[in-house]
Amino acid sequence: MSRENIQNSAGLVETKLAKIQLPSTGLKLENGLLLDLTVAYETYGTLSPNKDNVIFICHALSGDAHVAGYHDDSNISVGWWDEMVGPGKGIDTNIYFVICANILGGCKGTTGPASINPETGKPYGSTFPRITISDMVDVHRLLIKHLEIDRLAAVIGGSLGGMQALEWTIRYPDMIDRCICIAAAASLSTQALAFDIVGRNSITSDPNWQDGDYYGTGHTPDEGLAQARKIGHITYLSPEMMTEKFGREKHDKTYSNARFSTNFQVESYLDHQGNKFVDRFDANSYLHITRAIDEYDLIEKHGSLEKAFDTIKAKVLVIALSSDWLFPPEQSVEIANAMLRAGKQVSYCNLQAPHGHDAFLVDIKNLSEIMKAFLPWVGDGNNSRQQSIQTIKPSEKKEYDNILDMINPGTKVLDLGCGNSKLLSLLADKKNIEGIGVDIDICHVIEAIDSGHDIFQADIDAGMAMIPDDTYDYAILGETLQVVRNPRLVLREMLRVAREGIVSFPNFGKWSHRLHLGITGRMPIGNSLPFEWYETPNIHLFTLRDFVDLCRQDGIKILSTVCMPSCNIGKLLVNMGFRNLGADRVLVKIAR
Amino acid sequence: MSRENIQNSAGLVETKLAKIQLPSTGLKLENGLLLDLTVAYETYGTLSPNKDNVIFICHALSGDAHVAGYHDDSNISVGWWDEMVGPGKGIDTNIYFVICANILGGCKGTTGPASINPETGKPYGSTFPRITISDMVDVHRLLIKHLEIDRLAAVIGGSLGGMQALEWTIRYPDMIDRCICIAAAASLSTQALAFDIVGRNSITSDPNWQDGDYYGTGHTPDEGLAQARKIGHITYLSPEMMTEKFGREKHDKTYSNARFSTNFQVESYLDHQGNKFVDRFDANSYLHITRAIDEYDLIEKHGSLEKAFDTIKAKVLVIALSSDWLFPPEQSVEIANAMLRAGKQVSYCNLQAPHGHDAFLVDIKNLSEIMKAFLPWVGDGNNSRQQSIQTIKPSEKKEYDNILDMINPGTKVLDLGCGNSKLLSLLADKKNIEGIGVDIDICHVIEAIDSGHDIFQADIDAGMAMIPDDTYDYAILGETLQVVRNPRLVLREMLRVAREGIVSFPNFGKWSHRLHLGITGRMPIGNSLPFEWYETPNIHLFTLRDFVDLCRQDGIKILSTVCMPSCNIGKLLVNMGFRNLGADRVLVKIAR
Repeated sequence: MSRENIQNSAGLVETKLAKIQLPSTGLKLENGLLLDLTVAYETYGTLSPNKDNVIFICHALSGDAHVAGYHDDSNISVGWWDEMVGPGKGIDTNIYFVICANILGGCKGTTGPASINPETGKPYGSTFPRITISDMVDVHRLLIKHLEIDRLAAVIGGSLGGMQALEWTIRYPDMIDRCICIAAAASLSTQALAFDIVGRNSITSDPNWQDGDYYGTGHTPDEGLAQARKIGHITYLSPEMMTEKFGREKHDKTYSNARFSTNFQVESYLDHQGNKFVDRFDANSYLHITRAIDEYDLIEKHGSLEKAFDTIKAKVLVIALSSDWLFPPEQSVEIANAMLRAGKQVSYCNLQAPHGHDAFLVDIKNLSEIMKAFLPWVGDGNNSRQQSIQTIKPSEKKEYDNILDMINPGTKVLDLGCGNSKLLSLLADKKNIEGIGVDIDICHVIEAIDSGHDIFQADIDAGMAMIPDDTYDYAILGETLQVVRNPRLVLREMLRVAREGIVSFPNFGKWSHRLHLGITGRMPIGNSLPFEWYETPNIHLFTLRDFVDLCRQDGIKILSTVCMPSCNIGKLLVNMGFRNLGADRVLVKIAR
Repeated sequence: MSRENIQNSAGLVETKLAKIQLPSTGLKLENGLLLDLTVAYETYGTLSPNKDNVIFICHALSGDAHVAGYHDDSNISVGWWDEMVGPGKGIDTNIYFVICANILGGCKGTTGPASINPETGKPYGSTFPRITISDMVDVHRLLIKHLEIDRLAAVIGGSLGGMQALEWTIRYPDMIDRCICIAAAASLSTQALAFDIVGRNSITSDPNWQDGDYYGTGHTPDEGLAQARKIGHITYLSPEMMTEKFGREKHDKTYSNARFSTNFQVESYLDHQGNKFVDRFDANSYLHITRAIDEYDLIEKHGSLEKAFDTIKAKVLVIALSSDWLFPPEQSVEIANAMLRAGKQVSYCNLQAPHGHDAFLVDIKNLSEIMKAFLPWVGDGNNSRQQSIQTIKPSEKKEYDNILDMINPGTKVLDLGCGNSKLLSLLADKKNIEGIGVDIDICHVIEAIDSGHDIFQADIDAGMAMIPDDTYDYAILGETLQVVRNPRLVLREMLRVAREGIVSFPNFGKWSHRLHLGITGRMPIGNSLPFEWYETPNIHLFTLRDFVDLCRQDGIKILSTVCMPSCNIGKLLVNMGFRNLGADRVLVKIAR
């Protein structure tokens, strides 16, 4: 750890051990019993007087309680998410009181297979009970109680940590205000399952494993554990990042035929990772924890994801990592979609992050930005929503006002292609509507989350399938119909998920466009069509009349039309009833 | 093997052993020496009198000489590519004389680590020399010579087999007419390398491996080999196919805590694959062959791919498999692009195949169709090119004639968006031009290959980067400019790779379009614009004048313009000089 970073560090910390008071019958796990329980944890920042600033971080497979700061002067003593957690960082210890604890079954202080079994006075080894992710969360719940904390402002985790965060939110809905679930899944994919299985096979086929009772024998299944870790490491990195880091580079050492090793640097790297891991991790913990991950299955347990999420009261942010192939983005989409179907407050984003599954530990910059935007302001933070509304331009304002006029207060609104989310903020402000946005641009997603809105990062052409029929009162498609691939399908989907639709688009039938094409023989350029033909994002050009024709053809009712001319001739024409000639932009309210 | 399939089978075959005559000094390998050499091989079909119908198939890591037919009545005795090789199949044994041989270092009859070392009278074991893919090919070259065959009509292989096929084509250019290289790479990706390394580690860390000298000890590194095979199996399947085959299904057996096994069917499957492999494969062969794959690197060996391919005389077909993540399509693209840059006759296609890397063994239907199209007709096959020309419609003919008029005979032509490749056939027929096509549609790719043309399956918006500057005399873009995302970039690229460009497009400036929009206020529909606005593939609409403006702006010279009116008024207008008003479609010849 370099000295200049220390000022942004959570500082010198130590892992504390909490001896948890259990009932005399012990702690009942899902598939077994624990007679005593110790939980190792660390805390950072200061607990607010009314205890409303607690963030609990759930660690992943090989993590531990030491999430930030340092234990001593050595580089290796820096916490595993130090770039994320600290003063002024994504999880700001100037604001929040952060807790992280080693999980049940681990080997960093919390009771695990290497702990002493009070019944025998020897390490549990093969007698350690089979554990689940629910057990891990229940154990941490006991820690929180032990620390006399009632509520968590947020529970946050990536990978296995994301599964725990989900489980917290499902199991203890009344305790959790917000949940950030990063690079996780409602259950592991078959491929990830298969890698875990082979990893466990490596350990259990190592003769030194001795059916799990290797403690004190002088032999530990190091080869097997190192092999498992190597497999894991390949799956944590994106193929692109492996190529960038190592490519086919070779080290200088003389070619050795021993053990069929090669000179490729990636071999040295994997060897190093394997050996390093053996020094700090226990093989039985690896077996227990990976099996718990493999067996986590919300659908199997609850019947469906919607049912699993039924209890949730927290606002949830689901973050996928674009290059993660171990917990691919589709699995995060599955979680977010089901929450939406279950009527929960959920946002989803797919973060461009090149490092694969490991990105939540490495590609910190964008991740902390979006997390900062999502985390609740405790104390008297400034209100960013107000600012957002204040920056609306007069030219936008007219269209927004027209849209607002079409919407009844207190209704449910879906804003497709919500852009800078100013309309969502206006809806909240003027109509008391908590709308939800859909947009493909990550900047828009962060803006929306920062302004307190729920948003889905999705392509509108494909992005409504997850929404059940008749979920919204209004679906708004502002200046977007002309850029979608399949406008007809998008209109149909809008009116499937919402009672009414509000569509605005540039009108190619405007008098000046017709005149321009008719006389100059060139494609028109104007207010609502500001691009050259070869640079325009508008892949469908159409007139108000074309739109009306399509509605008629598809049985779509037009409830009202607002024509927005951009010049005096246009205004005159619209007033005379020649709307297709006069309007530069059009706003149409439609219904089934 | 079901009885009804037997009629399409290559029938009862047996593996023959060829004892190869070596010079008294033995066979010099790239990194060692072999004192004697046996090659196991099989043949199917009949050698033609002038020996011009020989196809050599190169097998992959776990394959062997037994590619087709059966050894006995048991199901397991069916060849590994039986669906591809046989009477009337993709590699038709009614036409071709097919040879397949076990590779050097293997364990199915050809000399390998388990063979007897003539110097010691014992199995080679740890003394077997380090081998390369070039060595494998050289050994098979000796077999072909032994069989008194001089030329191969084609060499074909997938995965490691594809690497061998490439190596054959590079090393023995005068022997090879055609090469089909499927799901291969000029060198392994870092990720694939890493998986191989971990697989080898599994074997060498198995105490029974005994540094490779386990033969006759009563102990073989079965656990390690099974582990390596399990890792391999995961990488051979696409994640989608793993999910489809196994999902998170569980078998009925009571939950067993032993060895931390789970009830997931994918675990039983992997166990089964591991155990089956141990019965039929030798661990030392696995080590030697995978290391040879890992160390194969055409760039390292030759300096660049262009240099590596410099010697090639064969016509090459490079096939990628869409869902292959072990040898991803980009690696096939890299091969094909380099061949193109080296001025070789090469076609590339990316086959939609769901099964991952294994698809070349499983997704046979499309693969055999494209291979059939590519393989040379030996004997008096029908000429499909003639048929293709005969089916040209009169409406197309006019445009083709106009294009042909713009092109000098014997020049080099690139046809972007070549569609049904009729123009390529006309160019060959009327102008003696062997053009090359680019198209995204696999049907068009197969059509082109079947008509004897070279073609690249690529998206034109992204598809010209691999072509060096000034490679062609003409680049043709027929009725495609309006559907590309970035027309300006495409025009620039055309004139980078070709001296002149020929572009045809629908003219939005035509009188009837202007009149239609001007009077009805609806988007025009007509001959060259046959789609409704919401269904059109034309994402850019523009007029002849717009095109001329862009050319002027970008410094593009217009050499000639042919206007194609579709009605009498149009003809009249064009004749009067009002080309933008009269032309329905336009053909423009451009230059830098």
